[in-house]
Amino acid sequence: MKQPSALATLIDALRALPGVGPKSAQRIAYHLMQHDRPGADKLGKALLNATSNLKHCLRCNTFTEAEICETCLDEQRDTSLLCVVETPADQVMLEQTLTYKGLYFVLMGRLSPLDGIGPKEIHFDRLVKRATDGAVREVVLATNFTNEGEATAHYIAQALKSRGLTVSRLARGVPVGGELEYVDAGTIARAMLDRRSV
Amino acid sequence: MKQPSALATLIDALRALPGVGPKSAQRIAYHLMQHDRPGADKLGKALLNATSNLKHCLRCNTFTEAEICETCLDEQRDTSLLCVVETPADQVMLEQTLTYKGLYFVLMGRLSPLDGIGPKEIHFDRLVKRATDGAVREVVLATNFTNEGEATAHYIAQALKSRGLTVSRLARGVPVGGELEYVDAGTIARAMLDRRSV
Ligand SMILES: [Zn+2]
Ligand SMILES: [Zn+2]
Repeated sequence: MKQPSALATLIDALRALPGVGPKSAQRIAYHLMQHDRPGADKLGKALLNATSNLKHCLRCNTFTEAEICETCLDEQRDTSLLCVVETPADQVMLEQTLTYKGLYFVLMGRLSPLDGIGPKEIHFDRLVKRATDGAVREVVLATNFTNEGEATAHYIAQALKSRGLTVSRLARGVPVGGELEYVDAGTIARAMLDRRSV
Repeated sequence: MKQPSALATLIDALRALPGVGPKSAQRIAYHLMQHDRPGADKLGKALLNATSNLKHCLRCNTFTEAEICETCLDEQRDTSLLCVVETPADQVMLEQTLTYKGLYFVLMGRLSPLDGIGPKEIHFDRLVKRATDGAVREVVLATNFTNEGEATAHYIAQALKSRGLTVSRLARGVPVGGELEYVDAGTIARAMLDRRSV
């Protein structure tokens, strides 16, 4: 017995979702087709819209629908401060603390040699170019306080200090081993205010 | 700071997936946009194709792209046997055992009064009509051996026996509490061969 091809194709395509194997792909497909077709339709359109329209900001590397994102275009921002984060989620968390009015660079990852993620994958050359534009005075490293995030911060700090920039790191108000995305805004706010030169 | 609307819409739409909350929706969206745009595109198209083209077989209620599914149209099938299963996944498992050559009715669920799933939701009236077409002699109940699956089998058995049909149940080769989808084909094969009148 064959599944109808529209169903087989959907089950196969669902495996693009992280952590979804053949059995859960089948369950998700049945669930959507049986109980939530409007949701499936909305999700299908959202996926195609996102893959067509989302690109990376030419300045800060975050997701944007324009060439340059709204944050980078915001003239109220302090162009002498550049905060380096791993992901757009981290950037959102920092913005919510209302403690930072500079600009950002989003690595879209962290150094992880065992996974083949090196300086190229975190857009290190673009970061150096961005940080040495003449306007930036201080680079605030806000990578996660995990082993990989710390190693990434250390690597970037060495490279940027050797180019004469002031480099700081969020204070260790963030628990060791913690990921920014899951820390409360108050803790991140204090860590931002207590950031220290490295 | 606002997320770009294509991204915000995607994160919101991903919550249609079972078990996906705001944080995991965000992670999935970032993952797809950063690491697997071809997969996201394929999934988007598969979802729209499935919602447009998948319907329920008018005879057996399983998913199909035609009015009547291929299994129901298969002239090699024994029309005197009708096997009742909860889901298309269970039907696929039974087919893999090669022990059954009759037809099917797919409930697309199981009775679960506490969740508001009653006879209407499992298409009970259509099942009765299908089972009393004059060709069907025996109805094989292959709902899961969970509490809800057993209650569903019991409910259907009472109704169909009162209409003069022979009703059987897969033998208890299937472990109590087990779900067909996760049982090996050999066990299901023995249970099919040992099915008993109820
Ligand atoms: Zn930007
Ligand atoms: Zn059918």
